Amino acid sequence: MTIKNSLYKLTLVLVALLFSHAGLAKTQWRHLDANNTVLMTLPYGKVVIELAPNFAPNHVAQFKKLIKKGYYNGNKFYRVIDGFVAQAGPDERHDTAPELAIESEWTPTANWSFTPVQKNDLFAPQTGFVDGFPVGYSKQENKAWLLHCPGMLAMARGNSADSGSSHFYFTIGQAPRYLDRIMTVFGRVVYGMNTIQAIKRTATIEGETPVSAQFFTPIVTMQLMSDVPVKERINIEVEQTNSHEFKEKLARRLARKSAFFYKKPPQVLDVCQVPVLSRIVKAKAID
Amino acid sequence: MTIKNSLYKLTLVLVALLFSHAGLAKTQWRHLDANNTVLMTLPYGKVVIELAPNFAPNHVAQFKKLIKKGYYNGNKFYRVIDGFVAQAGPDERHDTAPELAIESEWTPTANWSFTPVQKNDLFAPQTGFVDGFPVGYSKQENKAWLLHCPGMLAMARGNSADSGSSHFYFTIGQAPRYLDRIMTVFGRVVYGMNTIQAIKRTATIEGETPVSAQFFTPIVTMQLMSDVPVKERINIEVEQTNSHEFKEKLARRLARKSAFFYKKPPQVLDVCQVPVLSRIVKAKAID
Repeated sequence: MTIKNSLYKLTLVLVALLFSHAGLAKTQWRHLDANNTVLMTLPYGKVVIELAPNFAPNHVAQFKKLIKKGYYNGNKFYRVIDGFVAQAGPDERHDTAPELAIESEWTPTANWSFTPVQKNDLFAPQTGFVDGFPVGYSKQENKAWLLHCPGMLAMARGNSADSGSSHFYFTIGQAPRYLDRIMTVFGRVVYGMNTIQAIKRTATIEGETPVSAQFFTPIVTMQLMSDVPVKERINIEVEQTNSHEFKEKLARRLARKSAFFYKKPPQVLDVCQVPVLSRIVKAKAID
Repeated sequence: MTIKNSLYKLTLVLVALLFSHAGLAKTQWRHLDANNTVLMTLPYGKVVIELAPNFAPNHVAQFKKLIKKGYYNGNKFYRVIDGFVAQAGPDERHDTAPELAIESEWTPTANWSFTPVQKNDLFAPQTGFVDGFPVGYSKQENKAWLLHCPGMLAMARGNSADSGSSHFYFTIGQAPRYLDRIMTVFGRVVYGMNTIQAIKRTATIEGETPVSAQFFTPIVTMQLMSDVPVKERINIEVEQTNSHEFKEKLARRLARKSAFFYKKPPQVLDVCQVPVLSRIVKAKAID
């Protein structure tokens, strides 16, 4: 098999091995709760976000309340820096949401469903997943927190810890992990990250024409999935990260046994580089 | 200052602090060599790539030779996985380039211009920059290698180490650092990463309609910048990563002294999350 006549075919193999790494065991899925799922419509497509009420309950509650009021419809992504964040929120006249106490970490209960990924990660004593969300954990402090991996949703704030209210951002590049534990992360993109990546950048480099505000990407609508007519919903299931099958996938990803790895990489995993799969399913009759 | 009346204004401050972190000292710039710079035109915009002849000389030489023959014009990005890679190359009939011996690492000379960033990074004993490129370094092995940070250009290959020829990929998500030292990285995007992010994804999730090959993003043209008429060139300068000013910026980024950091993050830097600035300048008379 030479690269010349097989690269197109190899594509599928590599997708399987390197990324989706569909393996021997069957993926276990979890159906998202439409009451904690957001459908954001942009001019370029649709995005589905799973909220994290277990980790940032007050931020999620306020975000849902604002969404139900139509607060975000027509808002612009006014701060979009390639490789960093895409941030949106209302203009000053409509910026009426109350400030919230920060919810950047929590104290795990003894029986929490944590799937460990890596010890002594550069920024955390331990990383792992809870319900598909990337999590940092310190046993010594008995604290856990959501990580700023790509595709996470977090609340913007001023200098005060407790100044977040409604302006939010998605992380769109290499994880800015130095923001872990000092920002409230409260959701993650489970579908349409390519649409997030299409958001018009507002930050330009020296020598480039600045981007006029009229070209900022608008949010067409932001809805709770439970408020979307059943026929128009995007029904997402996500991989169960506490399943035996997912743990086996982590082990395979660490071992890199494929022949492609003619030399084995270090046996470490960057939690932000471990894909958690999503799939689209038909609406459940009970929805 | 409340978040409600100042978030738009705060934007500029945050851009400065968190990302471009324009500091006290003046940025030092290096003009790119048009003979080692590539202009890739996509339907959505233009991309400028700096090649790395010092680190992967044979890959750069072959890539330049192919570009000069118009080899890549009309090629498609046929393997594009959100958060991972955008890969392009000719179809089987036109895939005539010879295979190359891998150039995934090199032995640094005693006087190499290495700016250290982080010790005991998850994947490397030491990370840093050389000429704006992110580099891993092992003193013990006396080896250095280019890192798979977002926006790097590398050669695809089959299972054999020495099977790369012309199919290439850009990294478009969280750095797949497990590919360090087993792939030949030979360039980096210095302008137009947003255009790279606009490339049509070819990998879909379960339940989604597969993307037909007719919608794959084509390369309109791929040219050496030195072959582009002077008036049509994009003249890029990049930050000098061996300058005193850049080292000061690294130190400030590590210290996070801004009031925004009401609690200081761990004093570590992810080399792939450190921006290296570019700017557009007018053509030099000597070009």
